[in-house]
Amino acid sequence: MKYCSNCGNLVIEKIPDGDNRHRWVCERCDIVHYQNPKIVVGSVAEQDGKILLCRRAIEPRYGYWTVPAGFMELDETMEQGATREIFEEACAEVQIGHLYASVDVVEAGQVHLFFTAVLLSDFSAGDESLDAALFSEQEIPWTEIAFRSGKFALEKFFEDAGENNGVHMHQVVWNRR
Amino acid sequence: MKYCSNCGNLVIEKIPDGDNRHRWVCERCDIVHYQNPKIVVGSVAEQDGKILLCRRAIEPRYGYWTVPAGFMELDETMEQGATREIFEEACAEVQIGHLYASVDVVEAGQVHLFFTAVLLSDFSAGDESLDAALFSEQEIPWTEIAFRSGKFALEKFFEDAGENNGVHMHQVVWNRR
Repeated sequence: MKYCSNCGNLVIEKIPDGDNRHRWVCERCDIVHYQNPKIVVGSVAEQDGKILLCRRAIEPRYGYWTVPAGFMELDETMEQGATREIFEEACAEVQIGHLYASVDVVEAGQVHLFFTAVLLSDFSAGDESLDAALFSEQEIPWTEIAFRSGKFALEKFFEDAGENNGVHMHQVVWNRR
Repeated sequence: MKYCSNCGNLVIEKIPDGDNRHRWVCERCDIVHYQNPKIVVGSVAEQDGKILLCRRAIEPRYGYWTVPAGFMELDETMEQGATREIFEEACAEVQIGHLYASVDVVEAGQVHLFFTAVLLSDFSAGDESLDAALFSEQEIPWTEIAFRSGKFALEKFFEDAGENNGVHMHQVVWNRR
């Protein structure tokens, strides 16, 4: 951040009064421009014991398989976001179940939240996908999964085997595989 | 948002190519300034069957009691954020347990996530608190709880009675009590 999004003046980096962290501050507007983590919501949708994955048509990880997920928007709930993402990526309608996995990705400034879901419709590759397909646990292309958070979500989904065992928490650290 | 935080040029509101929502876009930098929900993390810390609440010394809801919680920062995990918040508000050290309640507050652009915790230390009012105190379920000042998300979190905490029953999901709608 270099300029105030409210007035266009240059911002400075300083610790505001009563705070203990460096923030971007506009001294003309007297506004602190806080920056916070973003939420990624995704769902593992099941039908007859198989789950729906998409093959990415975009970078990063073009060509790899992914749990349908994406950035939560301002005008929706987490469930609505997860429902929208799987519709965009796999043209699939789902019924969201429960939140069962959370992954902190501090280096990316992201929290990834995964829900169980039931697949209610046909599906096909959306604009951001090369393909969409159902996989049993044995068929999952484990070495071709796009992101470690999604791999964690898939592992815990199958470990849970349909039970709600609460939220499995995990942290992905970028410089450590 | 009026100005590009990267170059100070005026931004325009438009639907970027390949997108389906209006965004703030800088046509000089060719940057889309996405805006997304923020995460509030909090914890209900227990000691000998009582839980720790703080009485707010700041607006909004000055003087009301609250579950220690606040905005998650970029350089921390959710657990670290919840740990930091209860230390700032109640000078309390805790061991975070499990994620058990989530509340969408769409009108505020926020998701509130609540964890169980065990209180490990003494406590006292932090800078943003008038008071900090332990309450049994019978002693909770239900009509003086600052926010509906915190009230929901308290209700579910006592309903769970120490068990991990997964995440209780809820939405708070601002124009509806």
